[in-house]
Amino acid sequence: MSLLNKNYLKLKSGYLFPEIQRRAQLFADNHSNISLLNLGIGDITEPLAPTVAKAICEATQEMQNKARGYGPSSGYNFLKEKICQNDFASLPINPDEIFISDGTKCDIAAMQELFTTNNQVAICDPVYPVYVDSNIMAGRGKKICYLPCTEKNNFLPQIPSQACSLIYLCSPNNPTGTAFSKKELQKWVEYAQAKSAIIFFDAAYEAFITDPDLPHSIYEIKGADSVAIEFRSFSKTAGFTGLRCSYYVVPKKIKVEGTVLHSLWTRRVDTKFGGVSYPIQRGAETIYSPAGRQEIKQTITSYMNRTFFFKKELQKLGYTVFGGQNAPYLWVKTSPTYSSWQFFDHLLTKGIVSTPGEGFGPSGNGFIRFSCFAPLTVLQEAVLRLKTT
Amino acid sequence: MSLLNKNYLKLKSGYLFPEIQRRAQLFADNHSNISLLNLGIGDITEPLAPTVAKAICEATQEMQNKARGYGPSSGYNFLKEKICQNDFASLPINPDEIFISDGTKCDIAAMQELFTTNNQVAICDPVYPVYVDSNIMAGRGKKICYLPCTEKNNFLPQIPSQACSLIYLCSPNNPTGTAFSKKELQKWVEYAQAKSAIIFFDAAYEAFITDPDLPHSIYEIKGADSVAIEFRSFSKTAGFTGLRCSYYVVPKKIKVEGTVLHSLWTRRVDTKFGGVSYPIQRGAETIYSPAGRQEIKQTITSYMNRTFFFKKELQKLGYTVFGGQNAPYLWVKTSPTYSSWQFFDHLLTKGIVSTPGEGFGPSGNGFIRFSCFAPLTVLQEAVLRLKTT
Repeated sequence: MSLLNKNYLKLKSGYLFPEIQRRAQLFADNHSNISLLNLGIGDITEPLAPTVAKAICEATQEMQNKARGYGPSSGYNFLKEKICQNDFASLPINPDEIFISDGTKCDIAAMQELFTTNNQVAICDPVYPVYVDSNIMAGRGKKICYLPCTEKNNFLPQIPSQACSLIYLCSPNNPTGTAFSKKELQKWVEYAQAKSAIIFFDAAYEAFITDPDLPHSIYEIKGADSVAIEFRSFSKTAGFTGLRCSYYVVPKKIKVEGTVLHSLWTRRVDTKFGGVSYPIQRGAETIYSPAGRQEIKQTITSYMNRTFFFKKELQKLGYTVFGGQNAPYLWVKTSPTYSSWQFFDHLLTKGIVSTPGEGFGPSGNGFIRFSCFAPLTVLQEAVLRLKTT
Repeated sequence: MSLLNKNYLKLKSGYLFPEIQRRAQLFADNHSNISLLNLGIGDITEPLAPTVAKAICEATQEMQNKARGYGPSSGYNFLKEKICQNDFASLPINPDEIFISDGTKCDIAAMQELFTTNNQVAICDPVYPVYVDSNIMAGRGKKICYLPCTEKNNFLPQIPSQACSLIYLCSPNNPTGTAFSKKELQKWVEYAQAKSAIIFFDAAYEAFITDPDLPHSIYEIKGADSVAIEFRSFSKTAGFTGLRCSYYVVPKKIKVEGTVLHSLWTRRVDTKFGGVSYPIQRGAETIYSPAGRQEIKQTITSYMNRTFFFKKELQKLGYTVFGGQNAPYLWVKTSPTYSSWQFFDHLLTKGIVSTPGEGFGPSGNGFIRFSCFAPLTVLQEAVLRLKTT
């Protein structure tokens, strides 16, 4: 008789975003006269940069003219080199330490496979739910040590008193928008060094950092390349959510119980992954061209201007708002009488879709997240609707 | 201290195909005067069908004109419906039981996550190495029951005497080229029903079946939709190796210990996968258009004609050759004095790259696999070189 991995039954019934979509759809079905304003899932609204689109088409034409078989599972060198030269120019990272991936979600969920279920896992609370869920699925449900990020500690996780060996950090944090300073990040690198722990550093939103003093990569901290794996994304910056291409860095210096992690992960990638679509990698390559850079910079600026606008308006309306400085997310306190799901439902009566803070972890209760990718007209309409009680 | 998943250390040092590539490259570097004839990895040589390329470009243009955010993790309905109507027309499969994937390798490697490490796993020997490797990684190294497929049993696995609960079948088999008859497949479905076992049915090569009596889908067997997950591929049929799109079927009827597997797998896909690139799914959709069908039929016919040619020539040279009737692979006996890796090395001295049978499992020793995707001129040159001793 086949035996089920019962860890799956310990998960909350549905992944957060499909549940939000379900409730929003139900509302829409019953209120055809009210347009839905989507400030829920963090998804792009600006179209694909022309330079990227052109490169994808050209690469597809190339495949029509001449067969191109399997690509390398870990990605093409042309893209790895561009990433290295641009995103890690003065940092100790080499192209062969970069892996091209079909999405940050996939790899940050998969990386834990290289470790036993006996590892104690430290995860910020609140945070992107995939870290917790993937560890529950693997059987580490009782091994998770939540690091509360609250108003009291300025939403920065504190070093845990117990020894943790796998640490998930997200900076700028999704959902709170908080980003680590070099000094704060330094503490974690030192902790990891002292405890022989590994840091999974999710920097998917680094391109939205506006404060010039904040680090964009954990490798800006000395010694991080022997303890940290960093994840990056093209999804929000270059509008790649529907294209599926991102990347991450596994430095060769990282050893776990004497074994070079890079070799083990390469074996995993060769066996369980087939690489990213060739035309899409060619598209990603152009993000680093002068024209691509310019187009993407405009998009990011536009998203951040919307974020600044909406934050200011919410504050005018009396809301307590965090984030929105180095990430396109606002972390908003709900009225004291509302749980975050109740506040989500309340906002939905106005046709405004948010994300309940609780969906990101227990410390998220009492908050909702607004994502500010929506066009300015949508944000303006949301302000109007919030003004009506 | 972080603790390593030591199951990874039990794997053979490298995944089969990178190792072959390494040896081939070494030969090429030392013999610049001899061109390499690649009959090793099963990879396409014909370019992308024009209809598919056109659709990919159009979808990319569409994204340049209007933002398209995250797609559904399990794939777009437009593609699922086309697959269902065409590939499962008279079979009991619905579109919402189909999952669009970025490669058969990825999902056939991942599906075992839904099961405990206590499941006894039955795997054909020889076979595509990912089944074994992914189970070793997960900690089922000692739970693998090999099903020898030898000349004696016409390369068809026999029902094991011990109770197995996860069964990997591959038809047409890679590497032997053997395909199950309905009668043979019926036995396995009955076994799975009797033992409450689950069959992972890898039908990646079904499009190459030329014998009209052979089943293309396991769902042609009554009752299979309550015990079998089927995997299909566009890689070889439509030249998608570099594009990354395939699909598989998880019927809603399958229950494991009372739990509907489809729900659990959906949760897994939502949490750990981000879906396939939108333009690539639009490309895949056109495979089912009249023009797409025609183009792909030509490609498959062309690959199979090459296979028939090379088989006949090898037989003329005195080789004992199996397969090549319902798959683009030939399974060739090595000379009695050679192991399969020795024969691989011997062929490499002639610049011919093959795949050593041993790489597919212990029963593969004494055989090599030729893949016949190469252009006819390459196969003709290989024949010439084989004639010279």
